[in-house]
Amino acid sequence: MAEEKQKKMAIISTKGTLDMAYPPLVLASTAAAMDVETIIFFTFYGVDIINKKKYDKLQVAPIGNPAMPSPVPMPNIIGILPGMTALGPIMMKNMIKGINWPTIPEFVDTCLESGVKMIACTPTLEMTGVKKEDLVDGVSVGGAAEYLDFALDANISLFI
Amino acid sequence: MAEEKQKKMAIISTKGTLDMAYPPLVLASTAAAMDVETIIFFTFYGVDIINKKKYDKLQVAPIGNPAMPSPVPMPNIIGILPGMTALGPIMMKNMIKGINWPTIPEFVDTCLESGVKMIACTPTLEMTGVKKEDLVDGVSVGGAAEYLDFALDANISLFI
Amino acid sequence: MAEEKQKKMAIISTKGTLDMAYPPLVLASTAAAMDVETIIFFTFYGVDIINKKKYDKLQVAPIGNPAMPSPVPMPNIIGILPGMTALGPIMMKNMIKGINWPTIPEFVDTCLESGVKMIACTPTLEMTGVKKEDLVDGVSVGGAAEYLDFALDANISLFI
Repeated sequence: MAEEKQKKMAIISTKGTLDMAYPPLVLASTAAAMDVETIIFFTFYGVDIINKKKYDKLQVAPIGNPAMPSPVPMPNIIGILPGMTALGPIMMKNMIKGINWPTIPEFVDTCLESGVKMIACTPTLEMTGVKKEDLVDGVSVGGAAEYLDFALDANISLFI
Repeated sequence: MAEEKQKKMAIISTKGTLDMAYPPLVLASTAAAMDVETIIFFTFYGVDIINKKKYDKLQVAPIGNPAMPSPVPMPNIIGILPGMTALGPIMMKNMIKGINWPTIPEFVDTCLESGVKMIACTPTLEMTGVKKEDLVDGVSVGGAAEYLDFALDANISLFI
Repeated sequence: MAEEKQKKMAIISTKGTLDMAYPPLVLASTAAAMDVETIIFFTFYGVDIINKKKYDKLQVAPIGNPAMPSPVPMPNIIGILPGMTALGPIMMKNMIKGINWPTIPEFVDTCLESGVKMIACTPTLEMTGVKKEDLVDGVSVGGAAEYLDFALDANISLFI
């Protein structure tokens, strides 16, 4: 009766940009290290984070992102020149290297190895034509009901 | 004493883009089908989702959205040509049609019919000049305190 | 035994745009007024909200933001002209003035005075070169584990 209940966290990951790929992975790996049972439900653009064809080249658009910390001041106009979107990830990758964070593929592996359960959203796969075999090994497939089943009993639910 | 407590979910919906209009509606309708008492608090751009003048023509901007799944590769530059913003919703609508999802107006009705409570944020209405009569019938009006009252006792809280 | 447990809310604030700076501050100050113990964990671009060099000039980009309520219809193209990004905040500031909301610096102070605990993310500070002395007085510094410790026991967790 007095035993403590297993703590749980349920994350929905919907963004496929490099900057918004880190928060679910940082939070899930930290939680796993604290013995929190954690799932990440990848849906919409978030599925790119566990798509083997895409997860090593996620992009940050400097445009429409006025809050991006820019070492070099960068007017919006530059963001629309062809090829300039790549500037975002390069700056961000250098900043991330400066604090020794793993790459996205490394981070996904770390999460899976530490017991984080990863689920790709079935309707998103159907809608975008992504196949089960495009996904990182160890990722399962499910719908909103599977997410809700877990989340209704979780201590933390986040939509990222 | 041993009766199970009514499960609850509280969603804050702040984005008025076509892609971010679906998650609150999918989650709320799925939760309602699982007998979860659900509210959606629409604030900031999210109010467009229940604004009868706007909810059938929500937009997706291809620009600044590098993670958007694009059947046709599309450089950022194209996103800024006049009229091109419309490309986003057309592609997305076709993808959604492919998996037979309802339109936003249909989905809002489905949620209301299945008992989801929808609340429009009072300060947002004042700030944008949207009137109560512009909102879908059945939507009520309230502030952050009303949301918090419900959410403090909910199993799942999400900010979308 | 029958005493009610202290209610808690844990917010993660990740966006440094003017529009997404308000939700954490509105929710936290409302919760504090309802005697809810509240923390805001500022990470990624969200750190700008408590950065004294930046928090009085947060930007809204009209571009890539098709859902922004625009008093004047504004094609996406205008958003990329140099200087035009400033249009977003001016329009938004006027709308906010219309409903008498405090400015961001005023709102941050109000939250701190009413007991909201504010934590800036250590890795974000390292990554962006922001110093502790750049932050508003009263803001502390911590990592994801500190956030999780609090959030695992909170009634509401939000990722903004």
